[in-house]
Amino acid sequence: MNDSSPLRVLGIDPGSRLCGFGVVDETRGGMTHIECGGIAPPARADLGRRLSFIYDEVTRLIAEFQPAVAAFEQVIYAQNVKSALVLGQARGAALLAVTHAGLPMHEYTPTQIKKAVTGYGRADKNQVAMMIQSLLNLPEPAMADASDALAAAVCHLSSYRYLAQTTEAP
Amino acid sequence: MNDSSPLRVLGIDPGSRLCGFGVVDETRGGMTHIECGGIAPPARADLGRRLSFIYDEVTRLIAEFQPAVAAFEQVIYAQNVKSALVLGQARGAALLAVTHAGLPMHEYTPTQIKKAVTGYGRADKNQVAMMIQSLLNLPEPAMADASDALAAAVCHLSSYRYLAQTTEAP
Repeated sequence: MNDSSPLRVLGIDPGSRLCGFGVVDETRGGMTHIECGGIAPPARADLGRRLSFIYDEVTRLIAEFQPAVAAFEQVIYAQNVKSALVLGQARGAALLAVTHAGLPMHEYTPTQIKKAVTGYGRADKNQVAMMIQSLLNLPEPAMADASDALAAAVCHLSSYRYLAQTTEAP
Repeated sequence: MNDSSPLRVLGIDPGSRLCGFGVVDETRGGMTHIECGGIAPPARADLGRRLSFIYDEVTRLIAEFQPAVAAFEQVIYAQNVKSALVLGQARGAALLAVTHAGLPMHEYTPTQIKKAVTGYGRADKNQVAMMIQSLLNLPEPAMADASDALAAAVCHLSSYRYLAQTTEAP
């Protein structure tokens, strides 16, 4: 990649019902929102079909937007063991699509993401959503899952920018 | 499928470190053990590679043994949310391989499996392993994960046999 080509990140936030995604570019001027939304597998389909739906949609997003890397939030918390299992299965399908597409994958803890986006590791969901709207010049706040996915992408770009700064020749 | 061709089931028991599998045929005479073992993704590989490993191995098993159907134990219990997430991700990878191979997938609760194998829904793991060894004429007990996968396959065949009996013309 030469200096002028943007670094494009696909942020993914798999939930038990909806899998949020967000595509963000970093250019010299800052970060640019490209796309965001949610992948909603048909609720009445069987488990295999729902996982397949997530896998296919993530594969399609990668083909369409050609990101250089994917960023996931590390799941630390779930309501209970049952919802953690459902979440894990959805996450497995999304991770597999990313791996099969040959994309490098990075995980960030919720605290890392909140800190990168708001400067404060214990910010609440609304504060993160407002900062994402402001940072990416969105006309309105993104819906929750998409906002979290954008936040993961922004976190990756912040870490990347920090690394690039610290490894630059003096 | 005609009456004389065996029904072949692939049982899968995804664990956080090892994913057990077992292949069982039903013929008119009873059930026959074809193969069993464990899929062990490289422990030091990153998450994407580990999930990919499970997906590839399940895909390979289906190509090699050509089962007609896959049977999974429904996970009800996990030590905690963290291990449920890890388990869910592994399960998602195995389920996706089954779905991508076009195999119908059935899930059974631990109680259904124990009851089908031992006649008692609250049997312990050792009792299940001993019954599996006896039912399938294994020279020695299968290792835990493989035994659980064989038990899921046996449970499916028992349900199938029961259904076949109850829907047969008088």
